Amino acid sequence: MKNSSDIAATGRPKLYLMPVTLCDGAPSDVLPAQNIDIARRVKWFVVENLRTARRFLKRCDREIDIDSLTFAELNEHTPAAEISKLLDPMRQGHDMAVMSEAGCPAIADPGADLVAVAQREGFDVVPLVGPSSILLGLMGSGFNGQSFCFNGYLPIEEPRRGAKLREMMNRINRERQTQIFIETPYRNTKLIAELASRLPGDTLLAVGCNLTSPTQSIVTRPLRQWAATDTTPYNKVPCIFLLFN
Amino acid sequence: MKNSSDIAATGRPKLYLMPVTLCDGAPSDVLPAQNIDIARRVKWFVVENLRTARRFLKRCDREIDIDSLTFAELNEHTPAAEISKLLDPMRQGHDMAVMSEAGCPAIADPGADLVAVAQREGFDVVPLVGPSSILLGLMGSGFNGQSFCFNGYLPIEEPRRGAKLREMMNRINRERQTQIFIETPYRNTKLIAELASRLPGDTLLAVGCNLTSPTQSIVTRPLRQWAATDTTPYNKVPCIFLLFN
Repeated sequence: MKNSSDIAATGRPKLYLMPVTLCDGAPSDVLPAQNIDIARRVKWFVVENLRTARRFLKRCDREIDIDSLTFAELNEHTPAAEISKLLDPMRQGHDMAVMSEAGCPAIADPGADLVAVAQREGFDVVPLVGPSSILLGLMGSGFNGQSFCFNGYLPIEEPRRGAKLREMMNRINRERQTQIFIETPYRNTKLIAELASRLPGDTLLAVGCNLTSPTQSIVTRPLRQWAATDTTPYNKVPCIFLLFN
Repeated sequence: MKNSSDIAATGRPKLYLMPVTLCDGAPSDVLPAQNIDIARRVKWFVVENLRTARRFLKRCDREIDIDSLTFAELNEHTPAAEISKLLDPMRQGHDMAVMSEAGCPAIADPGADLVAVAQREGFDVVPLVGPSSILLGLMGSGFNGQSFCFNGYLPIEEPRRGAKLREMMNRINRERQTQIFIETPYRNTKLIAELASRLPGDTLLAVGCNLTSPTQSIVTRPLRQWAATDTTPYNKVPCIFLLFN
């Protein structure tokens, strides 16, 4: 257990939480130079998807010798009992890095379980700055950033889906809390139509799509205007959804 | 109103949401090179604090000619009726940038009101990647990142403060929702002691402090361990607090 040395540079191995680009642009457009330096230095990786992780490192620096690195996969198929073992290289004194398929690790992927183990064992956990569609969408929406909630995916089945929509509207109205969620991209158009038909027309919906790409957009309008909008361009495109009043 | 051209590069002026460093380190450690390029190019700024904004731009690039730039202030003293006028340079076709005192604009500052006006008028809003203590704290905590809530400051007065603590515990237990909040730094030590005495001892508290600085730390432990920890090093230091189970 760490103590009064909590706030201090330590010689302990570090678990870097390394954000990945959200789209195919240059990593230097959305990642600080420091991240690329760390990507060049670390030799032990825990990644959500091997193929995308290797490709990302090559895009950071073509000189990185991928074959000299050690990768372990951590995703929804990883048994909970196997997660702790993934930190063995740290126990032997090596720095490690965690990478998600896209965006910030440990936000909406199994990386959080690995971080929890690292915290229990007192390792240094070092999150790095990078793109998060949740945060970028919130910044661009104009909605309340002093109180907000990320809900992940909405429930698919009724009555749970309707109950969730009512709960979100309650928290918008009573707590002035921005409500953020995601949807499987092929259902984006259907979701916007559903929100427009089930929620009050003056509720504001912000849709952020293709964030950090050259075609990115964040558009905020009342649901009654969304009902009159051609939303087919949003179909099958990565989007983040935000509701407020 | 934008329509099927929502998802497209446009020639319209852009409102950049430009994150600022959280501490005195090099901007390139926490900001992508693209942000620095944009900081060199934009001539019209809306900033929370004039002095820190000018200093930040000089730290991005000493060659930036601060005297050739136009700054307007937007903070808690700005009357609501004055906010729309701040976008006049955009209405004349100029790109603009919004900067907070620290971290990401429009997350916990009046910048969100300016973004809301820009959204109503259909301007392009472009959030840039940068450090957010909320997101970095969440990544490093090991807590649930699929459902989380940022609460800003806790209420100071009873019974509202106790009610807020109960509501957060309910949402942790019933919804598996990570609860995030901040405190005035000189009260950090008192807050940790209060949480340890009022909430169940097995509740996990993560404290992220001095994030992105060389002395940063993120430590997760049960409240009963925090009760036995010397927390004086956390006093008067910028911290983010996260609760989970």
